[in-house]
Amino acid sequence: METARASGDATGLIGIDWGTSSVRAFRMGRQAELLDQRHSKHGIMHLPQGGCPPGRMPRATAFEQAFQELCGDWIQESPGAPVIASGMIGSAQGWRQAPYLRVPCDPKSLARTLTTIDRGPGNTPIHVIGGLEQTTPRANVMRGEETQVLGVLRRFAHTERLPLGPLLIGLPGTHSKWVWVSEEGCITRFETVMTGEVFGLLCRHSLLGQTMTPREDATSHMGAFRQGLSTARDEGARLGVLSDIFTTRAMSLSGRLAPNEQADYLSGVLIGHEVVALVRQLKQDMQDMQPPPVVLCGDSRLCERYRTALIDQGVMPAAEFTDACAEGLWSIADQAALLAPSQVPPTASS
Amino acid sequence: METARASGDATGLIGIDWGTSSVRAFRMGRQAELLDQRHSKHGIMHLPQGGCPPGRMPRATAFEQAFQELCGDWIQESPGAPVIASGMIGSAQGWRQAPYLRVPCDPKSLARTLTTIDRGPGNTPIHVIGGLEQTTPRANVMRGEETQVLGVLRRFAHTERLPLGPLLIGLPGTHSKWVWVSEEGCITRFETVMTGEVFGLLCRHSLLGQTMTPREDATSHMGAFRQGLSTARDEGARLGVLSDIFTTRAMSLSGRLAPNEQADYLSGVLIGHEVVALVRQLKQDMQDMQPPPVVLCGDSRLCERYRTALIDQGVMPAAEFTDACAEGLWSIADQAALLAPSQVPPTASS
Repeated sequence: METARASGDATGLIGIDWGTSSVRAFRMGRQAELLDQRHSKHGIMHLPQGGCPPGRMPRATAFEQAFQELCGDWIQESPGAPVIASGMIGSAQGWRQAPYLRVPCDPKSLARTLTTIDRGPGNTPIHVIGGLEQTTPRANVMRGEETQVLGVLRRFAHTERLPLGPLLIGLPGTHSKWVWVSEEGCITRFETVMTGEVFGLLCRHSLLGQTMTPREDATSHMGAFRQGLSTARDEGARLGVLSDIFTTRAMSLSGRLAPNEQADYLSGVLIGHEVVALVRQLKQDMQDMQPPPVVLCGDSRLCERYRTALIDQGVMPAAEFTDACAEGLWSIADQAALLAPSQVPPTASS
Repeated sequence: METARASGDATGLIGIDWGTSSVRAFRMGRQAELLDQRHSKHGIMHLPQGGCPPGRMPRATAFEQAFQELCGDWIQESPGAPVIASGMIGSAQGWRQAPYLRVPCDPKSLARTLTTIDRGPGNTPIHVIGGLEQTTPRANVMRGEETQVLGVLRRFAHTERLPLGPLLIGLPGTHSKWVWVSEEGCITRFETVMTGEVFGLLCRHSLLGQTMTPREDATSHMGAFRQGLSTARDEGARLGVLSDIFTTRAMSLSGRLAPNEQADYLSGVLIGHEVVALVRQLKQDMQDMQPPPVVLCGDSRLCERYRTALIDQGVMPAAEFTDACAEGLWSIADQAALLAPSQVPPTASS
């Protein structure tokens, strides 16, 4: 856990992104500026002594302990600062279940339906943001990404770079999300693609991984990555992504892929298929109209891969951010009127 | 290892299917009838004390020991019987590397290019069948499946059910193979789809597996399997199979899939995508012509799933076999003139 100190008086909001395997906490100033940031390994599946087996502490106690360890000193120094949280903390396995909201969903609805964790008399409550649920065209869920999306929108508003019209926001990761946002900032639809998790499984556990050497760094074999994109792009005869990934094996056996190129090639095939399908979908949706600008938000090296794949399909991303979680938490706290009125910066008011 | 006895005098061929994780041996009579069958766990990656680390026996010694344990008594009883083997025994990690042949490849070419393992003076050599390699439209390889394919063709010839014209032979498994065979019995093209391995990885290691209960038996939730097929079939908005598999998660969270239905639903999504892509490919290839009859060869419960998916796409399989390896080994031994002339049954002569 990283620690640092900041002046308690200046704190306007404490925001938490509580995921499955880790937690991040943001201490923000009264003008939404980031004063401090920490992370801990106590994701909802890795609580301190947590979990169900008998003899362990109740989950609520484990959550409280993890929370105290992460930002108990912040709360003590700034007892008046509101606390808001997003992510798996609101799932069935989380601290308190925060119901899903159905798309289309606007930021106001998210702000109106926060679930409160009452931490007892005299203790600051935690306001938990609900996830989003979609039933059509495909059953889908997200928890946490809705906050990233609102953060991206806030960044745009703040920097006065908001494009006119709808946006498509891509959040590459273990499960990448593609989120359609209307001109009014309403999340209208989203898709999840398990590209990252399947890539990891194939490298660690499948036949394909057996001949790979570990990648020293993610950018070292972009040539092999582009070769994978080319396999995914090819309109020739094929049986889909689960067929194309096997070319990694065939090309390795024939010496056309070196052991240290195989993972990047496979990454190219997988991300290529995701992006080819996305762009095909966009074209179908839009007919002759211009598709919405695409914004990427995620790890910069992963975003580079998605940007390369998008450009390969003729789509130039309009903007790229590495993280917008703190901004999203602030945005929802603002809409929920959790912030003291004076501390909302004018450019972010709505 | 299973053992049984058979009369040595009657033995016409000893055939071996030597895979990665296991080995099967067939003792065949002089009319190709199966006299005995055994299997052992000594696949090329599970040799007795085998492998490279110092202090262990050399791999060739480990192969010889595994071979002796499996069918040393057969060889002793029938020293004149030829021995033929297919599968990973001929790979770079096998006993002796048997080069790949390029498609299109006819059975005669396979028979002409057997690689011989010389086991020393007075010991029956082992004739190893080479795998097949394809460079276009996709790089691809197979080892062992070519023998299954020839076995299927021999069964057809033997039972006088050979359809006129080309065939498409599907071999469902960890990596399913779809093999195009010309009217003359020549393998012209093949595709590999990693459906089975990816299904296993997702069930064992992914987020999707976390809420699944193990399937008691493979046929218990065919309703959920069909629901998965329907997701894969749907022409609506979507980003491909790695997106559609996430509906397993979304539908589980909303209670639309019970824990004991999730694996079968996922199986339906994966097999559905494979078969939808295959049938789309067949239609593209054939234009207005009739697609080739489809024959399935593999585990009967898995074949049932593929049959269901094919029928769902309007394709009724022409025939189904659980295994044709022994017939394939016989067929190649026959074409290679390894068999004593008198023992080739008239219906299988060529």
